[in-house]
Amino acid sequence: MNKYPKALENLIECYSKLPSVGKKTAERYALYTLFSMDESDMIDFTNALISLRKDIHICPNCGNITESSLCTICSDDTRNKRQVLVVESVKDLLTIEKVNEFRGVYHVLNGAINFSKGIGIDDLNIDSLIEKVKNNEIDELILATNATIEGETTARYIKELLNSYDIKITRLAHGLPVGGDLSYADEMTVLKAFEGRRDY
Amino acid sequence: MNKYPKALENLIECYSKLPSVGKKTAERYALYTLFSMDESDMIDFTNALISLRKDIHICPNCGNITESSLCTICSDDTRNKRQVLVVESVKDLLTIEKVNEFRGVYHVLNGAINFSKGIGIDDLNIDSLIEKVKNNEIDELILATNATIEGETTARYIKELLNSYDIKITRLAHGLPVGGDLSYADEMTVLKAFEGRRDY
Repeated sequence: MNKYPKALENLIECYSKLPSVGKKTAERYALYTLFSMDESDMIDFTNALISLRKDIHICPNCGNITESSLCTICSDDTRNKRQVLVVESVKDLLTIEKVNEFRGVYHVLNGAINFSKGIGIDDLNIDSLIEKVKNNEIDELILATNATIEGETTARYIKELLNSYDIKITRLAHGLPVGGDLSYADEMTVLKAFEGRRDY
Repeated sequence: MNKYPKALENLIECYSKLPSVGKKTAERYALYTLFSMDESDMIDFTNALISLRKDIHICPNCGNITESSLCTICSDDTRNKRQVLVVESVKDLLTIEKVNEFRGVYHVLNGAINFSKGIGIDDLNIDSLIEKVKNNEIDELILATNATIEGETTARYIKELLNSYDIKITRLAHGLPVGGDLSYADEMTVLKAFEGRRDY
């Protein structure tokens, strides 16, 4: 038997869609929203959600999210436009940006080749990248697709596709995570660590 | 250095106001909202927040939250209107409702007497309760204010106030929580358990 007003029930339902938020936590969030958030916080919250839908769109140049016509990275003149890092998703891009190491630009594929799900190369955001390579706009392509079957397949596919062009194609190093214990590493990671071992 | 678009930053800020949600979790929620929630989920979410502000108000009879003129409890004819359980907050009411044991109605004080914060009896939602007692509309008043200094003070104050009227005033039993280990109980709880001990 449920005693919550419908509006509160709806909000609980919405919160419970967030990652690793169960019914109990969603209920706590919703009750907090109702009883402890002040009017202005709630207006901010609503506006943030509306603005997320309305103001954020995809950068036509690289596939990053942006509120302007070009994203902050593509419109940054200090970044090397001839060095392009290829990622599967905007999330991956944001992860790399946090490190503050890379000073080139990105290309977001928006997925990876996955035959079992029927996702082929044509379903990815790749045409504009090929076009740039053809027009000799790129010196180095850093493939940073995930170290999964899908990511590896995609990386290999892109390499094949661009083999005939005179550009440097590199792949981010895979190996043991820094600070990680060897005994916790999975086989694939250990294998990659062996493959990539260097003189010491 | 921050690379998130403003709309995303704002949403992270909003999520981080939820109870025990830090910056990292808020970021995860916001990224999920942006990348993994579909259009209709986000519209539902926005509408739920708007409706929470717009549709939920306070029941004039008991202080519960409601979307109608009277709350579902006050407008339920099967409930005993002459047995009134007094709680500090709607959250407490909801907790008791979940047990599905109580078949009377509620009165939400909307706080408790707290001299250090300057909250006196006049700041509580109590006039309508006194009025009902005076008009002989109540048989039993169950005081379920919290077992804190503030809650106890409030309970005592209400009892004093209504001493001259012919109604039964009871207080919810305090003691060791069911399933709890004695060694984990705080002194106050053990004390209450002694005070309330019964023949066995």
